Amino acid sequence: MSRIIALATSDVRFPTSLELDGSDAMNPDPDYSAAYLRILTDSDDGLEGHGFVFTIGRGNDVEVGAIEALSDHLVGRDVEETLADMGATWRDLVYDSQLRWLGPEKGVMHMAIGAAVNALWDLKAKRAGLPLWQLLARLSPQQIVDLVDFRYLSDAMTPAEALEILERAARGRAEREQELLAVGYPGYTTSPGWLGYDDEKLARLCREAIADGFDQIKLKVGADLDDDIRRMRIAREVCGPGFRIAVDANQRWDVDVAIEWMSALAPYDVAWIEEPTSPDDILAHAAIARGIAPIPVATGEHVANRVVFKQFLQARGLSILQIDATRVAGVNENVAILLLAAKFGVPVCPHAGGVGLCEAVQHLSMFDFVAVSGTMDGRMIEYVDHLHEHFVDPVDVHSGRYWPPLTPGASTQMLDESIAEFTYSAQERRSVAL
Amino acid sequence: MSRIIALATSDVRFPTSLELDGSDAMNPDPDYSAAYLRILTDSDDGLEGHGFVFTIGRGNDVEVGAIEALSDHLVGRDVEETLADMGATWRDLVYDSQLRWLGPEKGVMHMAIGAAVNALWDLKAKRAGLPLWQLLARLSPQQIVDLVDFRYLSDAMTPAEALEILERAARGRAEREQELLAVGYPGYTTSPGWLGYDDEKLARLCREAIADGFDQIKLKVGADLDDDIRRMRIAREVCGPGFRIAVDANQRWDVDVAIEWMSALAPYDVAWIEEPTSPDDILAHAAIARGIAPIPVATGEHVANRVVFKQFLQARGLSILQIDATRVAGVNENVAILLLAAKFGVPVCPHAGGVGLCEAVQHLSMFDFVAVSGTMDGRMIEYVDHLHEHFVDPVDVHSGRYWPPLTPGASTQMLDESIAEFTYSAQERRSVAL
Repeated sequence: MSRIIALATSDVRFPTSLELDGSDAMNPDPDYSAAYLRILTDSDDGLEGHGFVFTIGRGNDVEVGAIEALSDHLVGRDVEETLADMGATWRDLVYDSQLRWLGPEKGVMHMAIGAAVNALWDLKAKRAGLPLWQLLARLSPQQIVDLVDFRYLSDAMTPAEALEILERAARGRAEREQELLAVGYPGYTTSPGWLGYDDEKLARLCREAIADGFDQIKLKVGADLDDDIRRMRIAREVCGPGFRIAVDANQRWDVDVAIEWMSALAPYDVAWIEEPTSPDDILAHAAIARGIAPIPVATGEHVANRVVFKQFLQARGLSILQIDATRVAGVNENVAILLLAAKFGVPVCPHAGGVGLCEAVQHLSMFDFVAVSGTMDGRMIEYVDHLHEHFVDPVDVHSGRYWPPLTPGASTQMLDESIAEFTYSAQERRSVAL
Repeated sequence: MSRIIALATSDVRFPTSLELDGSDAMNPDPDYSAAYLRILTDSDDGLEGHGFVFTIGRGNDVEVGAIEALSDHLVGRDVEETLADMGATWRDLVYDSQLRWLGPEKGVMHMAIGAAVNALWDLKAKRAGLPLWQLLARLSPQQIVDLVDFRYLSDAMTPAEALEILERAARGRAEREQELLAVGYPGYTTSPGWLGYDDEKLARLCREAIADGFDQIKLKVGADLDDDIRRMRIAREVCGPGFRIAVDANQRWDVDVAIEWMSALAPYDVAWIEEPTSPDDILAHAAIARGIAPIPVATGEHVANRVVFKQFLQARGLSILQIDATRVAGVNENVAILLLAAKFGVPVCPHAGGVGLCEAVQHLSMFDFVAVSGTMDGRMIEYVDHLHEHFVDPVDVHSGRYWPPLTPGASTQMLDESIAEFTYSAQERRSVAL
């Protein structure tokens, strides 16, 4: 028997605001950061589980504090038992009534639970000797259903319906796994489109995106309409007709403004509008979707939990669902969201970029293809070429596609040197072992 | 000129779980706590602004950390300038893009901003020599509108519509202030209804509630249907026909279960069902409201922000709106919510209890009566007779009513001795002054 002996945390911050990488209409100067967690055990295998919450700078210490608050739940636990029933482990963390009060199921505390859940999955995959996507995709349909908490979901999807989706997809898993290994998973790039870049850099990066084999780029919009029209026109000229160009307002608008703004951009053929307004505003998204049809509305990177996603699907507030690896309570909750998307027939195109989000989320899309939705049609994973060099198993993105990771684990482990170099406060905080 | 020189925080926890006070279907063993904040200035007046976030125990330290993360924004600021334009101050805190990422506008970070905003209002009211309700109720309609951030609200309420509501209520303010001072504001009590109490204690506390002059009590439900039917029957027998008995499920149910459960309790004449399901689930509340009509649905104590409240009103997911003093970003956001409720014609019955919530929220209801909705019809403030002795200016509740506080400030200041006695970690943490 082995036990979890400590949660070791680090406040890792990269000074990205110096280059205006990642600048958008709501986030002018992000410092891409990770509230980073290592779960240590006393097992002879020496394996650790790594996870993190992506933040954009200030407050990363608050997130680290929230992760440390989970020590009481995890330190001292039997590793095998904890990993054997991840559904029960998830509920144990999310249902803690005192911690739940701090959300409930949203914000700093919920994301901290996500980091812990993801770190446990990293450990479980390393122990199984499989990359996470493959570990998940080889679970039985019932085992996958057992990962999901159906509380608050049953009016949209019952466990029996989830099981049916998974059993339908169970046929053909092996073929799809081979297909995935052979052709990879589609990606798209946001690198050309940050608001802080000038027109020449935009045009150059558009050309590079095409040369790199991507079929879609994304531009940040929402600060100034004339600028957006000019940038959209430049991108359309460089990319040519038919090439997919999505735009992303990062929550900048109210309903009326969103509809006006998108009407002005519509002539340039928009692949989707992302985050037109508050990520809490299901009804506003639905009103915008009706007002700008047939332009699809995409959202999700700031959607707090599965209950809000459920309503977005019920109200047709989105037609492209963007999961995020570190916003909700980890792999289990994202499995629930993938199942909801499959139930409603909506494609999932994950949010990525930041620190390690590409690394983390690729596993979920690949699992979705092999074992849930069974298709890559209309699906693609966001890609930003930033900060991958700090990871032990960085994404392999080439020819416009993500290539399946084969290293055991969840690809969420940062290099020790990077953690040391970019730790914000000098001392790594370490929770006391029981 | 004076400056803010420090945020002094305390992790205050009362061991209430020992008595099962506050036990409900989702929160079996709360330790009522406050992440407590004092804003210190270098002004000669020696006045401090006090605020807090109510939590139920574990994680209170995380909330304290989030409050401390606001030091950079507040320490060093000009006090007069900061208090003169509280709308701008609110936006400065809520719009910090890096901190906003941690919500956005929900959970630990948003509540921390609420504590800071409330502490600033406490300071502003003390400096003005007025209780907060009176300070707010004496602002001009335009000054009140200027406190509110209308981003994400304009599809439901424009600044012009808010101004119209306030101008309509401006007539008769003086008379209503006199009425309030003469007759108080209605309260109701939850003291009889905690799940952890036995039947005899329930019956005794029901009798006491009536003797104390309350017109409504509330019972916690949702753990076991047979128990709930028995407890509801006892309460109805003791209180007699016509007496208002509300029930509160504390988020325990899914849609179908909520409708079934309430159908079983309906014969006992239910005044409202509170928090039947997830506080994020606007559409489920609306479905439940349709399914159990005419029993009203009440919610709000865990509703994350004004955007979610707006949708609850738009979708008719609630017909009784329960603001909470420390869940959203403080007084300003609650003013926005009061205006939304007035726009939709929905009564506001605040959540209270916990630590200092009765003290804090009475000011908002009294302001609402004098300057916003202009009525007490169908309105009442929750009352729980716990922990008031720890406050400098505790609520005066008698004859079933809240009597207006007259001491300058927001009534959010705890006694120094209580803070010292119940501080959880020995050392009070103090942010470094600039």
